[in-house]
Amino acid sequence: MDFSVKAKKLAPSITLAITAKAKEMKAQGKDIIGFGAGEPDFNTPDNIIAACKKALDEGKTKYVPASGINELKDAIIAKFVRDNALAYKREQIIISTGGKQCLSNALNALLNPLDEVLIAKPYWVSYPDLVHLADGVPVIVDTDEADSYKFTRKNIEASLTEKTKVIIINSPNNPTGTVYSREELQDLADLCREKDLFIISDEIYEPLIYGEEKHYSIAALNEDAYSRTLVVNALSKAYAMTGWRLGYAAGPKDLIKIMSNIQSHTTSNSTSFVQYAAVEALNGDQSFIPELNKEFRKRRDYMVERAENVEGLKYIYPQGAFYLMLDIRFFIGKSYKGEVIDSSLAFADRLLTDYNVALIPGSGFGLEGFVRLSYAINIDSIKKGFDRIEEFLSQLS
Amino acid sequence: MDFSVKAKKLAPSITLAITAKAKEMKAQGKDIIGFGAGEPDFNTPDNIIAACKKALDEGKTKYVPASGINELKDAIIAKFVRDNALAYKREQIIISTGGKQCLSNALNALLNPLDEVLIAKPYWVSYPDLVHLADGVPVIVDTDEADSYKFTRKNIEASLTEKTKVIIINSPNNPTGTVYSREELQDLADLCREKDLFIISDEIYEPLIYGEEKHYSIAALNEDAYSRTLVVNALSKAYAMTGWRLGYAAGPKDLIKIMSNIQSHTTSNSTSFVQYAAVEALNGDQSFIPELNKEFRKRRDYMVERAENVEGLKYIYPQGAFYLMLDIRFFIGKSYKGEVIDSSLAFADRLLTDYNVALIPGSGFGLEGFVRLSYAINIDSIKKGFDRIEEFLSQLS
Repeated sequence: MDFSVKAKKLAPSITLAITAKAKEMKAQGKDIIGFGAGEPDFNTPDNIIAACKKALDEGKTKYVPASGINELKDAIIAKFVRDNALAYKREQIIISTGGKQCLSNALNALLNPLDEVLIAKPYWVSYPDLVHLADGVPVIVDTDEADSYKFTRKNIEASLTEKTKVIIINSPNNPTGTVYSREELQDLADLCREKDLFIISDEIYEPLIYGEEKHYSIAALNEDAYSRTLVVNALSKAYAMTGWRLGYAAGPKDLIKIMSNIQSHTTSNSTSFVQYAAVEALNGDQSFIPELNKEFRKRRDYMVERAENVEGLKYIYPQGAFYLMLDIRFFIGKSYKGEVIDSSLAFADRLLTDYNVALIPGSGFGLEGFVRLSYAINIDSIKKGFDRIEEFLSQLS
Repeated sequence: MDFSVKAKKLAPSITLAITAKAKEMKAQGKDIIGFGAGEPDFNTPDNIIAACKKALDEGKTKYVPASGINELKDAIIAKFVRDNALAYKREQIIISTGGKQCLSNALNALLNPLDEVLIAKPYWVSYPDLVHLADGVPVIVDTDEADSYKFTRKNIEASLTEKTKVIIINSPNNPTGTVYSREELQDLADLCREKDLFIISDEIYEPLIYGEEKHYSIAALNEDAYSRTLVVNALSKAYAMTGWRLGYAAGPKDLIKIMSNIQSHTTSNSTSFVQYAAVEALNGDQSFIPELNKEFRKRRDYMVERAENVEGLKYIYPQGAFYLMLDIRFFIGKSYKGEVIDSSLAFADRLLTDYNVALIPGSGFGLEGFVRLSYAINIDSIKKGFDRIEEFLSQLS
C-alpha cells in the first residue's frame, strides 16, 4: 500500500521502543522504575469526577457545538482573566480533544506547503510531526546551554527565512522544565512583531512552577502580541485529567472560527459530559493545584539534590513542569561490559535492560547527550531509581 | 491574517445558517419542529452510563495507548465476527474520537496532493471537506435517480482518472437512506480490484435498516476486498452515544499503524473511561438496538405515507438510516407570497421563517431540488411538521 508522503515523514518514535520494552519487562514481573511517564500520578479530584457523573445522569450525552459549550467557554474566559490578565470573548475560544488537537487545528488553519515553523531544541516530541502533518516545515532552532535552551533574538534571527510563519513557545518547557521570564517574552514579542510571526504559546504546564518565577502568557504583554498569539492550554496536567482529553485555545476570532470548522469535520465536539466536568474543574475548588505543585516541588528538589551529588553528572535546572533533563555527556563514550555507550539511546537501553530503570533518551527531543526523567512517580520510586542509576554509572569506565 | 489554502477551501456550511436561525427562533420561544437533527432522540442505555461511572470510580482517567485499549479492541473484534463475518486482529483496529477522526486519519495516511477520492452525490457533508483537509481532491460522482443515487460501475468508470486512489462507500446512506445490496457491493469490489482503488466503507448506520435488506460489509465479500478496505463504524447512532465521541476502524495493519501514529500526535487516545463504557455497549445487553430499529421503522413508514399523499411531492425511499430526502423539484420555480422559490435553500428558509419547520436543503449534500428530513424526533412532532409542510406547499403557485 502506498501511503502519503507526510505520513511517511512522521518520525518513528525513538521512545516507543524503550517504553514498549519497559512494559514488556514489567509484564514479566520485573520491578521496573518508570521515569518515562508524562502524566501526574494523582487521581482526578473527586469534585470533577462527581460533576462528570452528574452530567451523565442529566443526559448530557448528545452533540454539542463543535467548538464547545458556552458554560465551559465562560469558565475558560474567567480562568484567563484570573490567571493571565487576558480578556477573551466566546468566539475567541475553542475546546478540543486535548491540547494536541488545538495545535493540530491551528497549524492546519495557518500553514501552506513549505511554510516554516520555529521550534526550539530540545522540543516536545509532537511539535515537528504536527507541523509535518499540516504540510509545513519544522525548523529546529539550535539553542544554547547558556540560554537554558530557550529561544533568543539571536538564535531566532539565525533561523528566519522568507517562509517563516509561526513560532511555538512552550513555557514551562517539556522536556527542560525551564520557564521564560517576562523580559524574555517581551523580547520575543518585539521580534515577532518586527518579523510578523504568528505565535503559538503552549502553556499546558502553567501551574507547575516551583521557585520565584511566575508564569506569564506572551499574549498578555501588549495588544500586538495579543493579536498574533494563540494560547493553548489543557486540563490534563493541572487537574490530573490526562485520559479525559480536554484542551482549549484562545486567540483571534477569525483563526478560532477556521479551527472550529476544521474540528467540526475531523472530530466534532470533545466529549460532551467531559466538558461539563471541565466547568467544575475550572470553576470549583482549586485547592488541588497548590497541593500538586507542592508535591512536585518536593520531588524536583530531591531529584536535583541527587543529580548534584553524582560526579560527572549535570542537568538542566527545572523551574517547572515535572521533568529533569540529565546531561550525561560525561558518560557518553565510556564502556559498559565491554560495549561503548555511544548515545543516549544506548544509555537508556542498558539502564533498562540491566537495572530496570526506564527513562527517555534525549535524542527523542532532538538533544543528544541527555536523558529525560519524569518525576510523576512517588519519591520512594525516585530514590530507588536514582540508586540504580548511580550503580549503573559507577560501572562505566 | 493569512490562512491556509486548504482551510479556505472548506465549504461555508449551507446548513449552518438554517440551523443557527432555527436555534435563535427557538430561543425566542417559537414552536420549532426540527427535522435537522443527526442524532437519535433516545438516552444512552443505562448499562453504558453505569459502566462509564464505574470506570471513573476505578480511576480509568489516565492516558491509554493512542489506538485504544485492548479490552475495547477485543469487543470490536467480536462485534465484527458476530455481525459482519469479518476477522481482525488487534493491530488491525483503531479507536478514535468518533467515526470522523477515523476518516480523517485514513485520508491523511493515504492521500498525496491531487490524489482523487470518489464520493457519490448526494453525500454526507463532511466527506469533501475531509478530503480537502488531507490535501486530496474530492471527485463528486454524478449518480442516477434510477440507481437510487448509488455508485455503479458505469458512473464510477465515468469519473476515474490516473489520480483516483480511494472510494468512499456509505451504506446505509446519509442523506438518502438507501442500502447497497450484496450484488451491488460485489460489483464495486470487482471494479475496485480491477482499478486498484482503496475502499473506505462507512457503516455507521448499520443497525438501522428497516425492510428485507441486510447490511453487508464490502470487506467481507472476498480476500481482495478485505485487503483493500477500511471499515469505519461508531457507537454514536447505534447506541445513542453521539456526544461520547467513540468511533473505530478496521483494516490492513500497515494502514492502522500509520493512522495510530497520526492520531498519537493530533489527539492521543479517545477519552479513556468512554472506552470502558464502549466495551459494555458492544459486549453487554443488545436489546436497545432492535427497540431503536423498531421505533425508527415506525417513523420511517409514517414519513413515507405522508409524503406519498402530497401531490407533486416525491422522495427517495429510505431503506435505512433516519433520513428522508424529499424531492421538491415540482415546487421549485413556484411562487410564494410573490417570491419565486428558486432553490432548496430558499424553500428551507421560507418554511422555517413562516412555518417554524427546520430541515436541511439538499444543496448541502450536493443535490439541489431536495430537502432532508431527519426522523430522529417523536412521531407527534413529525405529524405536526408534515401538517405545516403541506400547508406551506398549498400556498405555492
